Amino acid sequence: MSFTVPDLALVIRDISEEMALRPDRGAVADYIPELARIDPNQFGMAVIDAEGRVFAGGDSETPFSIQSVSKVFTLTLALGMVGDRLWKRVGREPSGNPFNSIVQLERERGVPRNPFINAGAIAVTDVILSGHAPREALGEILRFLQFLAQDSSITIDETVAASEKRTGFRNTALANYMKSFGVIDNPVDFTLGVYFHHCAIAMNCRQLAMAGRFLAHNGINPSTGHSVVSAERARRINAIMLTCGHYDGSGEFAYRVGLPGKSGVGGSILAIAPGKASIAVWSPGLDAAGNSHLGRIALERLTQRMGWSVFGA
Amino acid sequence: MSFTVPDLALVIRDISEEMALRPDRGAVADYIPELARIDPNQFGMAVIDAEGRVFAGGDSETPFSIQSVSKVFTLTLALGMVGDRLWKRVGREPSGNPFNSIVQLERERGVPRNPFINAGAIAVTDVILSGHAPREALGEILRFLQFLAQDSSITIDETVAASEKRTGFRNTALANYMKSFGVIDNPVDFTLGVYFHHCAIAMNCRQLAMAGRFLAHNGINPSTGHSVVSAERARRINAIMLTCGHYDGSGEFAYRVGLPGKSGVGGSILAIAPGKASIAVWSPGLDAAGNSHLGRIALERLTQRMGWSVFGA
Amino acid sequence: MSFTVPDLALVIRDISEEMALRPDRGAVADYIPELARIDPNQFGMAVIDAEGRVFAGGDSETPFSIQSVSKVFTLTLALGMVGDRLWKRVGREPSGNPFNSIVQLERERGVPRNPFINAGAIAVTDVILSGHAPREALGEILRFLQFLAQDSSITIDETVAASEKRTGFRNTALANYMKSFGVIDNPVDFTLGVYFHHCAIAMNCRQLAMAGRFLAHNGINPSTGHSVVSAERARRINAIMLTCGHYDGSGEFAYRVGLPGKSGVGGSILAIAPGKASIAVWSPGLDAAGNSHLGRIALERLTQRMGWSVFGA
Amino acid sequence: MSFTVPDLALVIRDISEEMALRPDRGAVADYIPELARIDPNQFGMAVIDAEGRVFAGGDSETPFSIQSVSKVFTLTLALGMVGDRLWKRVGREPSGNPFNSIVQLERERGVPRNPFINAGAIAVTDVILSGHAPREALGEILRFLQFLAQDSSITIDETVAASEKRTGFRNTALANYMKSFGVIDNPVDFTLGVYFHHCAIAMNCRQLAMAGRFLAHNGINPSTGHSVVSAERARRINAIMLTCGHYDGSGEFAYRVGLPGKSGVGGSILAIAPGKASIAVWSPGLDAAGNSHLGRIALERLTQRMGWSVFGA
Repeated sequence: MSFTVPDLALVIRDISEEMALRPDRGAVADYIPELARIDPNQFGMAVIDAEGRVFAGGDSETPFSIQSVSKVFTLTLALGMVGDRLWKRVGREPSGNPFNSIVQLERERGVPRNPFINAGAIAVTDVILSGHAPREALGEILRFLQFLAQDSSITIDETVAASEKRTGFRNTALANYMKSFGVIDNPVDFTLGVYFHHCAIAMNCRQLAMAGRFLAHNGINPSTGHSVVSAERARRINAIMLTCGHYDGSGEFAYRVGLPGKSGVGGSILAIAPGKASIAVWSPGLDAAGNSHLGRIALERLTQRMGWSVFGA
Repeated sequence: MSFTVPDLALVIRDISEEMALRPDRGAVADYIPELARIDPNQFGMAVIDAEGRVFAGGDSETPFSIQSVSKVFTLTLALGMVGDRLWKRVGREPSGNPFNSIVQLERERGVPRNPFINAGAIAVTDVILSGHAPREALGEILRFLQFLAQDSSITIDETVAASEKRTGFRNTALANYMKSFGVIDNPVDFTLGVYFHHCAIAMNCRQLAMAGRFLAHNGINPSTGHSVVSAERARRINAIMLTCGHYDGSGEFAYRVGLPGKSGVGGSILAIAPGKASIAVWSPGLDAAGNSHLGRIALERLTQRMGWSVFGA
Repeated sequence: MSFTVPDLALVIRDISEEMALRPDRGAVADYIPELARIDPNQFGMAVIDAEGRVFAGGDSETPFSIQSVSKVFTLTLALGMVGDRLWKRVGREPSGNPFNSIVQLERERGVPRNPFINAGAIAVTDVILSGHAPREALGEILRFLQFLAQDSSITIDETVAASEKRTGFRNTALANYMKSFGVIDNPVDFTLGVYFHHCAIAMNCRQLAMAGRFLAHNGINPSTGHSVVSAERARRINAIMLTCGHYDGSGEFAYRVGLPGKSGVGGSILAIAPGKASIAVWSPGLDAAGNSHLGRIALERLTQRMGWSVFGA
Repeated sequence: MSFTVPDLALVIRDISEEMALRPDRGAVADYIPELARIDPNQFGMAVIDAEGRVFAGGDSETPFSIQSVSKVFTLTLALGMVGDRLWKRVGREPSGNPFNSIVQLERERGVPRNPFINAGAIAVTDVILSGHAPREALGEILRFLQFLAQDSSITIDETVAASEKRTGFRNTALANYMKSFGVIDNPVDFTLGVYFHHCAIAMNCRQLAMAGRFLAHNGINPSTGHSVVSAERARRINAIMLTCGHYDGSGEFAYRVGLPGKSGVGGSILAIAPGKASIAVWSPGLDAAGNSHLGRIALERLTQRMGWSVFGA
């Protein structure tokens, strides 16, 4: 590999400049009123390499709602709490198209296909909640993210959480549907309360890339030396990110970017280059599959120029 | 990485011994009469590293029907013929459904989800066939495999092909269904004839691992120096293998093995460790998702001990 | 037609005796705890002919929870309030799916297939509720039934209503799902509150047969001379009962009984012999499609012996 | 009933005149080339009352392809051959939407929902074919129709049959799909050959109404006194026509017309007024559900004015 550190800085500068200028920006998520108000003319990215150096571009310090990217961290927490018993509640296969996500929920008796579709993440949240008050469970999730990012300033955007709660009819339907099959243990309102709030955690690109570092480095956060999960578990979470992290655009993301990644409708993507870097990009406009339009393009540029695809240099 | 060449030989010996002894062997595919007769007490594997050294264990010289593993090579051929226009005929998202499902075809107006489910591979075969006689198209596919494996002794098992043709009602249904949407150009019988025959190509583990080398090495077969596809295309084929290569067990394979791979109901799996090795395993017994039971376990052992998972050491 | 009044009395006596003795009684609905406690060894029926004579047998005076039979009356009320505009909210085609399926709702963007599956009845309840407090809407439904049955003693079983509310996760899922498509106007809790309560109305066979008389006689209750709906509307409600009144057993009911009918999981069926009679049967044990097992058999006997099938004498 | 014979003649004249003038004529089926060429400006109807009087209007003597209306007669024949054992091969529930027709074929392991959707009619044809040469089976079907209509001039339009065969990819898919589940006994080509040919039988309105008389009169053809089926079987066939006879427009047809009926994509509908009349209408333009647009409207007029709905006068 002939790339060196200056290359990465240069690559990020090039990408940030291209993204700032592109006219195609996708469409901001409109189903949560608070998200619909975000200015689509924003783009930020941050890359943290194995040595812990931070390379950033664009609006990398602007906080955004991490939304479904939180699912990576709740999965990690839940696996830490119940281990492989988690897989009785949720599968780990791609869901196919959005239609199938609910066909299969019916066919598979309330067990969601994977922890990264909404139904699956609600089931995972229910596991974290078990035996706790919603506020405690939520505190635990938030503290886990603060710990991973080494940044206690990370908070929940209560306005976004309230907005989701007010309009989250589909998630309420999914949770009640799973409850009817006995897949949800806690009162539906409790589980959804925690779910809506952890989706509303606000972070910036630098913080998010920092929080993802353990996945790039065999389960260990190299900055602190803390072992977050075992090397095997880190690999497995990465595998689920690659096969399921972008809803019905997961195949496309693997095809074009070639990294494990998880997107959120707030427009951010956390991507992992195993052994090399933790990467966060953010641009609010989404493509047809609900993933950040410019975020995906930026990651495609990055892996091409750095040779970081897991599928070959 | 502290593993050295002797390690690999040792690892393969250990795995081969374990696989020979395990009582759980899966169930031999019974829907094709010819395959149902295969003795399940067989296991073979072959690994070819970047230097071209072949490490083999068990029944690595016994030929088997490659079945759906042929789809990797027909995809490669079709992309060489029509390039990205291929993606108008077939998608590249995981199907989230049993491999022979006709439901998603209806919803998506005859366009199969990816080239590795049966419908998708039939559509790819139809592209290869276009403008040729079936015999010519089939000859081209066979010669391509002989060229990749550097072995002109590879042939088609006509008995298996005839057996599939006689019993292939579901594939006939899929092909006619796609034809009703205009996704198949040629007469259905022609396309299916070529399809049934390329699934009936017989190879052994060593030959199959040889044929897959270009995917492990940026599109180039290191033995011959031949550039088969561009580096980008090799990465992309690997990406599709990882997300779609094991039907509705693709997530599970990524989770446990962590390599791009393609399985066939004959019991073989071709797996790619980018930059490191091309791997073929074979054991006829299948798991519930239709993938080689021992083959998957052997690959899980191999990647764990060699640190070859694309998702982290 | 050579049957005379004594024949009907005799037929009902015969049927009641057979039903009391049969060992096959179906299975009492267990998903609502209050219904699960009902003794399955009960059977009642009541037939009211065109002259208003009441012929009854078995436990015809024992009250039961009318459950989904209430959907006939809420449909009638809602059509009276908004006329054919109702059909923007709900279709009138058989669902071809188990009664609680959420799949078709997704495909048809939240518009239920017909007013007799749960989703459709919830949408109809939402129309009745519009612009009223839940208590008022519920009062209107109850008074409508009291008026039709000419019996002000009919009440709601609050224990059953509370039991349904506590366990009605699937209905809560359906309502929230429709709400996400904008098909439900009122707060989901309000609509479901009214729905759970009108399903919990308790009536006996005689009362229920009385309430259905307007459907047998061109929209007019012959006892009172009140015109409840137009003759055309009565026919059309009968048509929907015949094609959709027994969930995924509607074809079977038409095939065996040959009358418009609506069943409820409490074990009752209201059936209409146009021009001839209004019929209510009740026996708590259900068949696999969720319809009263003995109730259906009793109606089959009745139509055969009386020659009342709408499909020929 | 105050209507008299002169009324019926008048009603048919009025309807025929209205239909000739209406600008909305639906769209001629285009998926079979031969049918696509038919002039949509045609309308015919014939009604045969209990006394055997024929009342006709419009193009009642013009032959058309009966298409799926033939399914009523193949169902009758197959029931005569194997009785209730037929119901192991095919169900008798409405199919829900067209999408479901194939979803459910998969879910229900190749057993079609009812004998009036294509898959079901192919399964019924396979039963008739069993143990015979295709030509013999087809001869039997044709002779049965000639016998019912008392008209040996009825023939098969070979051009239409050939056209269907050439373009019938979807039916070929369905037949192969069922064959893969073991629901089809004979070679698929044989079964489909018979199916395509009986769909291509050509009749005019008068002949078709004549052929349907046994269904209106308890299984007996009153002209000849021949008992075709038992009274019970006639009722049951009528029941299936009412719940399943118009694909995903069956509920709509019951709601508006209120008679058992079966439509074909050639634009004809056979409708039965039990005890009163056998009715055939024909107009080639179809509505969105694939049923004759003017045919349905004509029948709605007829039942309204004659008071013939089975759901009330």
